[in-house]
Amino acid sequence: MINERLSAQLAFIHEIDRLKYVIRQTALFGSERRENSAEHSWHLALMVLSLKAYANEPIDELRVLKMLLLHDLVEIDTGDTFLFDQEGRKAVKKDELIAAKRIFGLLPTDQSAEFLALWQEFEAGESADACFAQCIDHLEPILQNLSNQGGTWTKNQIDLHQVLAKKSRMARGSLSLWTWAKAAIEAHFDAQST
Amino acid sequence: MINERLSAQLAFIHEIDRLKYVIRQTALFGSERRENSAEHSWHLALMVLSLKAYANEPIDELRVLKMLLLHDLVEIDTGDTFLFDQEGRKAVKKDELIAAKRIFGLLPTDQSAEFLALWQEFEAGESADACFAQCIDHLEPILQNLSNQGGTWTKNQIDLHQVLAKKSRMARGSLSLWTWAKAAIEAHFDAQST
Repeated sequence: MINERLSAQLAFIHEIDRLKYVIRQTALFGSERRENSAEHSWHLALMVLSLKAYANEPIDELRVLKMLLLHDLVEIDTGDTFLFDQEGRKAVKKDELIAAKRIFGLLPTDQSAEFLALWQEFEAGESADACFAQCIDHLEPILQNLSNQGGTWTKNQIDLHQVLAKKSRMARGSLSLWTWAKAAIEAHFDAQST
Repeated sequence: MINERLSAQLAFIHEIDRLKYVIRQTALFGSERRENSAEHSWHLALMVLSLKAYANEPIDELRVLKMLLLHDLVEIDTGDTFLFDQEGRKAVKKDELIAAKRIFGLLPTDQSAEFLALWQEFEAGESADACFAQCIDHLEPILQNLSNQGGTWTKNQIDLHQVLAKKSRMARGSLSLWTWAKAAIEAHFDAQST
């Protein structure tokens, strides 16, 4: 029996390698080299270890880490969709669920169910763990864009109000981190306009 | 006070981005594109989530994840050293400690001390958590090489006995995973020699 389980787990481990080929919109810090979704997920995990104390409510660090380590795996099938592409993001929702079921479905049933539930909790963004995980997922590209003269905001002519409208959701996970980020975003756009 | 702590944490988060530029010897699955150490660390974390049940002894999943997420950060200063380059690996030890102190030292003192202790525990490879973390760190490049006609083994003319000698350490973390890996490695070299 160990062999059948292990074969399924190794098939999953092999398949997820493909996340390293999914290229995001945002570039690395102070760089034009765009990030892939595997690197991004690793960075978010280390941000949780560093920033967990700023969560509004007590969080389960292990659950938040799990959510962030696997939250982008669906992109193996659907690709990365730009945060500010509202139509594209709506359209992709159904495909993401199909992708989640296919990719997590490579694992033995018990693990597949656990990962799918964690992914759905992250996507719903209601629990304290999911709110903090989403907050961290929003923060990394802000830091990257700030280090890249506005990065994807500048390139796609996204203005201050659009950024604040999309990113204010961070406050549901961490009011302190959102307060810092909001001020930094405002200072960036202020400097652009002068 | 939140600002001073947060500034230190953000400096750390910015600095560790550089791990995405550290290129390892091994290539992605079924590919010639070499892996970077950030992608590698993400993959190991997901392997822990999938394979934790195979640990010889009960492990603390969160601690193992933390160790693997940060184990390669020293490479920002020292670069990646090939497993089979014994002289190179000995020489780099002292530099790695200096690197760990510099990089973790960007964080507030309490977090810096925690991360340094976790990294040292991983390097020592004595605790159950560290043994399992090392086991997973050894397994990923085996899977990659098996998917790449021997990959770095073939390229560097590493023979079966050298591989088994280096990798048998896996058994200290998981006898089941080592038993599987040993058989897979032997089957690979058998196929090469016929």
